[in-house]
Amino acid sequence: MPELRKDPIVQRWVIIAAERGQRPSDFRMESPVADVNPRSCPLCPNNEERTPPEVFSIRLDGSRPNTPGWLVRVVPNKFPALQLSGELNRRGMGLFDLMNGIGAHEVVIETPEHTADWDSMTTEQLYRVFQAYQARLNALGEDTRFRYLLVFRNYGVQAGASLSHPHSQIIALPIVPQLPKEKLTAARQYYLEKERCLFCDLIFQEQELQKRVVMESEHIIVLSPFAARFPYELHFFPKAHNHDFARTEGKVLVDLAEVMRRILKAIKQLLGQPAYNFVLQTSPNPIPRPGRPDYWGTLPYDYHWHLEFLPRLTRVAGFEWGTGFYINPVSPEAAAEILRETLSQLPNEAR
Amino acid sequence: MPELRKDPIVQRWVIIAAERGQRPSDFRMESPVADVNPRSCPLCPNNEERTPPEVFSIRLDGSRPNTPGWLVRVVPNKFPALQLSGELNRRGMGLFDLMNGIGAHEVVIETPEHTADWDSMTTEQLYRVFQAYQARLNALGEDTRFRYLLVFRNYGVQAGASLSHPHSQIIALPIVPQLPKEKLTAARQYYLEKERCLFCDLIFQEQELQKRVVMESEHIIVLSPFAARFPYELHFFPKAHNHDFARTEGKVLVDLAEVMRRILKAIKQLLGQPAYNFVLQTSPNPIPRPGRPDYWGTLPYDYHWHLEFLPRLTRVAGFEWGTGFYINPVSPEAAAEILRETLSQLPNEAR
Repeated sequence: MPELRKDPIVQRWVIIAAERGQRPSDFRMESPVADVNPRSCPLCPNNEERTPPEVFSIRLDGSRPNTPGWLVRVVPNKFPALQLSGELNRRGMGLFDLMNGIGAHEVVIETPEHTADWDSMTTEQLYRVFQAYQARLNALGEDTRFRYLLVFRNYGVQAGASLSHPHSQIIALPIVPQLPKEKLTAARQYYLEKERCLFCDLIFQEQELQKRVVMESEHIIVLSPFAARFPYELHFFPKAHNHDFARTEGKVLVDLAEVMRRILKAIKQLLGQPAYNFVLQTSPNPIPRPGRPDYWGTLPYDYHWHLEFLPRLTRVAGFEWGTGFYINPVSPEAAAEILRETLSQLPNEAR
Repeated sequence: MPELRKDPIVQRWVIIAAERGQRPSDFRMESPVADVNPRSCPLCPNNEERTPPEVFSIRLDGSRPNTPGWLVRVVPNKFPALQLSGELNRRGMGLFDLMNGIGAHEVVIETPEHTADWDSMTTEQLYRVFQAYQARLNALGEDTRFRYLLVFRNYGVQAGASLSHPHSQIIALPIVPQLPKEKLTAARQYYLEKERCLFCDLIFQEQELQKRVVMESEHIIVLSPFAARFPYELHFFPKAHNHDFARTEGKVLVDLAEVMRRILKAIKQLLGQPAYNFVLQTSPNPIPRPGRPDYWGTLPYDYHWHLEFLPRLTRVAGFEWGTGFYINPVSPEAAAEILRETLSQLPNEAR
């Protein structure tokens, strides 16, 4: 019997229709990456002049900005969806609200290596990527026009990546987008009622039940969510309450990097080379100005940051767009179980 | 300057980033259809035994059920996402809500012709398809377990169609899914405040402005929505207030069929053969039992049905899933203008 399940955070119903009896091998795929010759790759070392000037880099060799020698490099997107300079000019037009497309759109070049993924990088290098996220979240957060900072990563053509060189993106927005807003509202409501964090309670319940926990390390827990929209969707949480990724301690992020690498190795072992997306869900940008009546900016401490891993294994068919309704052909419990098994069988060095 | 626009119904912000300067020809595509030999196509005439027995058909020749002779035929989906028989068994488990996956999942076979699309069918045949929707909406609506009936159509592999024979699908759900619920809530709120229909006001405003009206016939108006998520997204509304597609008069549906054919012809003229989805947004299933405190079921009269046309021209990249946030590279005004122009240049018979 298929099940209808409601997401405890955003109250979204999904159908878990595992009846169709698909095994992990039915989802195996080798997703193409948009391959580009390293010599002409704008994200490769020695091609630094092909991107806008860098806004951040990690360099251990004292090399100068916009020259080779960097380990992680952040540059403005050459084709930004938003424009950095200008006024917001919020306005209405009858029933409509609009404002200028002010924001930032940056590319985090995660490694000088043209061909790599998070599972093949060292833990140290992946930690540097997270440090770059923190640095940019803190820097962009100082711009009081920005209300929300999105960090995301597209891997593979099917996931929307147009360059194969490992990179993530950061978008700074003058509004809080819909899904984070729903999550924030839910966390706020729960906190007002119970004086507890909704996500902390969820993590505790999952630890008790042990049905959807994929992996747990000292600081990180990886869950196969109860109402997952997609097969093998995973959520990564810090175990200790923490609303803001940018204010997370180094030891937690090193642990996250290690966990991340192992999980991705297991996913690839199980599913081949699927296209996927990572989306960071962190608290909105705090607004420091006193007296400003901004609900989201001033009290985000009841939120709990997490990373969503969304593999692109099924073709999203028509009605998801029109309905916000999903059919997931893999039960989250079965996904957790087989991933735990795969993790336990990884060669030692990879664990 | 890109613009941030808020959808007046669901309050979703999108970026309209037409700066990137893409022309219609940049989006041209010939989307593959999952081609199947008509002899082995389970939806073709003479293969009636390859589907579950029909639940509805339009036959003008007096032919018997499950034999050739039908013009439109509705059958249960052979691989349904939901199960028809059983109890809902709503239950909770800590923070989680779930229920059995009770529902219906039907396939509307739109024509005996293996190769066709809505633009190449006759108006009369497309009207029969809409009549089949109405018949099934009314029949399924009598099952008081069902709260929402979804009608949708996937065309082309990229839109999720696994069979090329022209067909649509109907899913009956024991819950109201998220996006219809948001729309219903917005319409309800607006009505409570103003005693007017939000959609009627929106249509009136667009008629005044004439910037996003693509086409208007006696009974139907086609809008390029102010905060469109996708390039060339279109919404079809009945001009007269009407909450329920199933209770719409024949003359309106004949007009819809005619408008639909012309719009699809213009779309194909402009964009090639894109994959696309249609999603019907109609009021929830009324619940006849007196005294039942069901908000959605008892008072849907402030809603206004519409059909959403969602072409799949851009690859939906990572963060849309994680954020509910969209970047649309085509301005809705430009899309409306070029579609109006294309419509005016269609050969006469096609208009």
